[in-house]
Amino acid sequence: MKLYETKTAPNPRRVRMFLAEKGLLDKVECVEVDIQKGENLQPEFVAKNPMKKVPVLELDDGTCIAETMAICRYFEEAYPDSPKLLGESATEQAFIEQWLRWLDYYYFVPCGMGFQHTSGYFKDRMTPNPTWGESCVKDTQKFMEFLNQHLADKDYICCNKLTAADLTAFAVTAFARVIQLRVDDSLPHLNKWYQQLKERPSAQV
Amino acid sequence: MKLYETKTAPNPRRVRMFLAEKGLLDKVECVEVDIQKGENLQPEFVAKNPMKKVPVLELDDGTCIAETMAICRYFEEAYPDSPKLLGESATEQAFIEQWLRWLDYYYFVPCGMGFQHTSGYFKDRMTPNPTWGESCVKDTQKFMEFLNQHLADKDYICCNKLTAADLTAFAVTAFARVIQLRVDDSLPHLNKWYQQLKERPSAQV
Ligand SMILES: N[C@@H](CCC(=O)N[C@@H](CS)C(=O)NCC(=O)O)C(=O)O
Ligand SMILES: N[C@@H](CCC(=O)N[C@@H](CS)C(=O)NCC(=O)O)C(=O)O
Repeated sequence: MKLYETKTAPNPRRVRMFLAEKGLLDKVECVEVDIQKGENLQPEFVAKNPMKKVPVLELDDGTCIAETMAICRYFEEAYPDSPKLLGESATEQAFIEQWLRWLDYYYFVPCGMGFQHTSGYFKDRMTPNPTWGESCVKDTQKFMEFLNQHLADKDYICCNKLTAADLTAFAVTAFARVIQLRVDDSLPHLNKWYQQLKERPSAQV
Repeated sequence: MKLYETKTAPNPRRVRMFLAEKGLLDKVECVEVDIQKGENLQPEFVAKNPMKKVPVLELDDGTCIAETMAICRYFEEAYPDSPKLLGESATEQAFIEQWLRWLDYYYFVPCGMGFQHTSGYFKDRMTPNPTWGESCVKDTQKFMEFLNQHLADKDYICCNKLTAADLTAFAVTAFARVIQLRVDDSLPHLNKWYQQLKERPSAQV
């Protein structure tokens, strides 16, 4: 299987961390896509993912699966003996999904929009709206504070164990430096959780 | 179980349709929340969902699960004998997740943002950015055209059968009238699919 991805981008990082925690990294051949140069906008790539984004998983029969969480779901179901990161019982699965959605809508999307609309990083392909970007940066910061409170009495985001929600929260928190948001002792619970995640081998891949 | 929801809002509608297709509507007692009046911003509701959104599922032990897809996942796993709407095999589950994510990020979110930022419907709780809203409306329309092409040779969004992806796409397509986007014969494949979905009993709940 091939994983089309970009080493420095946060969504592909979520997939790599997920695979590393499951011990499945060696199942994929990573193919680097230069999104800054716009390789993801070229016809060959658009044929794999009409939304023009990394990551994309290409199965051996040529079938392509786009979207970080769809790729993670594929590995969760295709390798049932690997550590479960999307939960076991119905309530566990629901909580993890709830957190993944909260993290995506109220943390990752504002962080990404904040970056794109204040930096003009992708101005060759979208029109930055700096006012919108600034309000997204504020929302990202507010969510960081929420997460800090949430983690006051916990080692993991939910279910008392490492789940895909921690990996997403970690990838976004690390990425937030592009909008000048860094975790430090002003958010002590988030920082403690972040430093613990950072020690895991999956944070290095 | 209680389902906190709003009859006219598109996210709760996705949950009701999902339950209706599974034959599980009678498992929940629906509790109407007036989001226009801001009932979802009151402390009692925020204790159930800190993100202040409907729908929320409250289990009999008081546990709350927010987020449409988390609630759907709960019912998919807790009632394994009901018709599967999130897929069976690993690839099926991955495709449905891919489509659900595409529909959420590139159709539902732009539609919702387009509405909120051009209408000022929620201006008591957020600052509308009309320029951003207009660009979201355009993105919604572009996705409708993409969906129309995609459905040229298909009866369902993916997997050759009704899945949660159809229910999401239907709820968004119906909701898009709030930004003056209506399906008609200018998008014939989308329209045909839409009319078929509209005939299902689940579209009436
Ligand atoms: N919802 C998608 C988002 C993918 C995404 O936005 N990927 C970024 C890199 S982290 C990308 O490909 N950006 C290139 C572009 O927007 O042109 C997912 O979870 O896979
Ligand atoms: N990602 C959430 C979105 C929920 C959402 O935005 N719900 C809307 C109604 S469709 C809402 O509660 N709006 C009230 C508000 O924003 O104050 C989900 O899928 O449940």
